[in-house]
Parts: sequence; structure tokens; C-alpha cells
Amino acid sequence: MTAPSFDLNGWNRERLAQVERALEGWVTADAPQGLDHGAPAELVEAMRYAVLDGGKRLRPLLVMAAFEAVALPTDPTGAPAALRAACAVELIHAYSLVHDDMPCMDNDVLRRGKPTVHVQYGEASALLAGDALQALAFELLTPMDGSVAPATQARLCALLARAAGSAGMAGGQAIDLASVGQHLNERQLREMHQLKTGALLQGSVVMGAQCGTPDARALHALEVYGAAIGLAFQVVDDILDVTADSATLGKTAGKDAENDKPTYVSLMGLEPSKAYAQQLLAEALAALDASGLAHTQALRGLADMVVNRAS
Amino acid sequence: MTAPSFDLNGWNRERLAQVERALEGWVTADAPQGLDHGAPAELVEAMRYAVLDGGKRLRPLLVMAAFEAVALPTDPTGAPAALRAACAVELIHAYSLVHDDMPCMDNDVLRRGKPTVHVQYGEASALLAGDALQALAFELLTPMDGSVAPATQARLCALLARAAGSAGMAGGQAIDLASVGQHLNERQLREMHQLKTGALLQGSVVMGAQCGTPDARALHALEVYGAAIGLAFQVVDDILDVTADSATLGKTAGKDAENDKPTYVSLMGLEPSKAYAQQLLAEALAALDASGLAHTQALRGLADMVVNRAS
Repeated sequence: MTAPSFDLNGWNRERLAQVERALEGWVTADAPQGLDHGAPAELVEAMRYAVLDGGKRLRPLLVMAAFEAVALPTDPTGAPAALRAACAVELIHAYSLVHDDMPCMDNDVLRRGKPTVHVQYGEASALLAGDALQALAFELLTPMDGSVAPATQARLCALLARAAGSAGMAGGQAIDLASVGQHLNERQLREMHQLKTGALLQGSVVMGAQCGTPDARALHALEVYGAAIGLAFQVVDDILDVTADSATLGKTAGKDAENDKPTYVSLMGLEPSKAYAQQLLAEALAALDASGLAHTQALRGLADMVVNRAS
Repeated sequence: MTAPSFDLNGWNRERLAQVERALEGWVTADAPQGLDHGAPAELVEAMRYAVLDGGKRLRPLLVMAAFEAVALPTDPTGAPAALRAACAVELIHAYSLVHDDMPCMDNDVLRRGKPTVHVQYGEASALLAGDALQALAFELLTPMDGSVAPATQARLCALLARAAGSAGMAGGQAIDLASVGQHLNERQLREMHQLKTGALLQGSVVMGAQCGTPDARALHALEVYGAAIGLAFQVVDDILDVTADSATLGKTAGKDAENDKPTYVSLMGLEPSKAYAQQLLAEALAALDASGLAHTQALRGLADMVVNRAS
């Protein structure tokens, strides 16, 4: 289905550069519009350390790809909103990693090949940097300069709050926490991951779409695509925790087994987990086939990247 | 200036009951609109413990009072927004207390006369409950049922994100953290408190006003009022830390001196701090006099409550 002219690597490179530039400019000590003071330098330093120069930026890329799939070439108004949404979901992701790595949670010292934020700046600063990154995500979604329509701002905040909150990412982490050493069946494991990682990945796709003008059929297809990729991401994460080494992952491998955490691999076995990931990829692509959307090449490429990644 | 017919105690009681009822109904495990799953029970229990049945609800009362000062009796559309804004600022306040009490921050075991959240539920749950409460605040501001105009939703999210974030509350806590054992002058101490507590108190007033239809003169007056009470609140906090006992405060008294934290009392002395608080009260009331608003009795009463409180 991929048009021969589409260059996924080139698309990725270009969008990544755009997102990096935007994050670089938005995670700063400058005073937000409407306030006459900026943020303290020490806090901003920890926030920048957590966000900049690292990560695959999968969520921002999903936002951009979904937006471009539904955007009308005749309507340029959605692009600034999509870039803001892309950065906002990454800030939520980054804050969740900072808090997740803390001693009272996963107690991890290595992330993206660097010392984790609490190792570098201390626990209190890590806690506050995470808190401030969550607030900054909503600040990015609500510019006061008229560049994003108020209705779009409201919709994006609504989607992000639900994806990040107690019935989304934070809720999934709470289930994860409570499930250490517990036996979960496949349904319980899936529900945990739908909240913990699925909600924000699917949310990224839907937020991107909402920056454009999706019809109901396209929106439904993108929701199905987002759910499939969200789950596939976690299945592959569980596979890589067993098959990859720490250097490749940029984080400590083998943590799940060590912590006696239920995973797809521990539940289904390694080969069936790999087959399940491929099945979810097929589901995601089938949803795009049924979407009625013409420009889905980037979404297809990202789905393939999620499932067939090495780290 | 207070009209003889205004019953502040009655107003407080009524608004408090409204806010308590709303929080009771909104901090739940029910699936948010647009999601087909709810939040895990264990997380919601910690969130409810942190929010319900405690606190003076000063911030929600400021939202309601500011809204009522600018609301046109002929336009009833702002009231649902104001109630949501009132609960949202309280959720942000509650989450900040949960995180602030954690061992890596103030390491406090007593709050509102009860064990703090991490003592009751463990550190990891406290961390996640705080994170989820921040997200829930933005969820409350963005109902998907048409009850609040999208432009109002966007404006409220913008104000709350800035009041809570790195150039607001979280930034102030970072300065506070870095200032232990340091000598601050009066300007530095004021800047710290303007961020740490002032931003959210002033934000509450402005958010309440934005649920109505303030003219520029009224909005400016309410900003000045909010800044004055925000600062007065902290001056009085510092005074009470010295003059009140733990039972009255519902938290550990004398912590500031014990932790060698700079306070107004340590900087100015006790009596000048008391005089400064009264001066800020006068400033707040003068701003209301100049506001052109008729219904400022509740705002006046709250200002008096902030400055002349015993706990």
C-alpha cells in the first residue's frame, strides 16, 4: 500500500528535527505568556535533562503522522496545534519516566544510556521536574497567542488529561505496581497495558487526528490503529526485555523477570508473543486500509517500526 | 463596605458543601466520558484520601467568590465552569501537598491531623496519586458534555497550567528546596512565595473571574487582590508556624525553624510580619474598592479569613 514515492526515513528525520527544535524552544526558563516571571534555572535544567537529546519520540511522530493523514491541504491551521500536541505527549511520557525511575517505583539508575534524573539531580528535584513537565504539557496545548483555535485547545486538553490520568497512564502504573508477584491472566495483563502505555499511544494518534478534520470513519479507524499499536508496543517491550541487552536498550534489561513482573513473555512464551505482535501489526494496517484515508504511509511506517524495532 | 445583609458564614457553608459534593462525585473510579474503562480502585482510594474530608478549601472558595463578583445575574452559563474550576484548583493543591510531604521532600507524617498519603499507602502510591490528581484537574476543566464553552475550557486550562507549573507552584517549590540553609533577602523570599503559593491563589481568583464576564478594570483589580492575598497567606503561614501548635495546625509546627528555612518571621521578626500581613489585607481590600464591582463581600470576607486565621 505504500506509495513508491514516500520516503519514511526522510519523513522521520524531518519530523524529528521539527519536534526537537520545538522542545528545545519550549522547555526553557522563559516567562510563559501572561506571567512576568520565568522558572528557576535549576528546575528547568532537570526538566531539559529529562526531555532533550534522547528518546525515539514515537508519540510525537504518531501525532504528526495522524494529523497529516487527516489534514486537508487547503487548511493549514492545524499544523501549529499538531506540533504542540506532539511536544505535549512527549512531555507527559518524559515525566512518567522520571517518576517511574525513582527509588520508590522501579529504582532504575540508567535511562537512554544516561543516569536517571534522580541520580543526576536528587529525588526531590526529579519529583518536581516530573510535576512541572506535566503542567507544561497543558501549557503547550493552550497558547495565548491565538495560534490554536480555543475549541482545539479544549479538545486536546481533554484527550491528554484522560490519557495521562487515573483511567489512563497513571492508573496503569498503579495496576502494574500492585501486580508485582501476582498472577495475571491475559485479559488482566492486557487491561493493565491498555492503561499504562496504550492510553497515551492511542491518545497521541487521536490528538493528532483532532488537529485536522477527521470524519467519523477515519477517526474510528485511527482509534483502532492506535489501540493495536499501543498493545503491540508493550508486547514488543516485554520481548526486548528478554532478548536485548542493556546497551542496546539504553536501560537495564531483564528487570521484569528480576522484579517478578507479569509480562507477555512470562504468560504466553517468547515465540507466541512474537506472533501476537505481528498479528497486532496486521490489525493496525487493516484499520488504515478501512479508514478511507489516502496519506497513511507515515502511520504504516511507524506501526512497522513499533513492532520490528530492536530497542 | 460589607452590605449588612451579607452572611459570610452562611455563604462559606453553602459553597463548601457544594465543593465537597462535587469533589466527592468527581474523584471516583468511574470511567471518564469518552473512555470505556475506569481507574483502578487502589489508586482512587489514595486520591480520595488526599482530597476528601479535609482542608479549608480556600482556593475553591476564592474561585467561587471571584466568579460571583463578576457574574451577570442574567447569564447563568458560568456557574458549572466555576464549580469545575473550584475543584480543579483544589486537586492541584491536594496533589502538591501529597508530593511535598514525601520523604524526599519535607518528609512529613501528619497532614490535616491524619497520616500523610505516603504513610498510609506507601511512597509509590503517593507519587502516582499526586500525578493522577494533577491530570484529573485538567480533566475536570474539559468536560465533553457541552456544559462549559470550549473557549472557557481553554482559558481555564491555560491559567491553571501556568499557575501550577515551572513558573508557578512547582517552580516555587524548587526554589524553596534550593533555599534551605541559604540566606534570602526580602525580595528573594517574596519571589519564592509568589511562585510557591501565590501563583495558585491568584490563579484561583483569576480563573473564577474568567468564568464570568469581567471587564479590564475588574480583572486588573482581582489580579491585584489575588497577589496581595497570595502573599499574605504565606506571611501568616510563617507566623503560625511559630505561634501555633501542631494540634491547631493539623500539621507539624515549628518545621521551618527546624529545617532552617527562610521565613518572614526569621527575616523581619514576628511583630513586623504581623503588621505586613495587615498591610497586605488593606491592599487587597483597596483593590476591591477600585474594582467597580458591586458584589465583593465574599472576597472581602475571605481576605479577612486568610489574614486573621488561627490555623
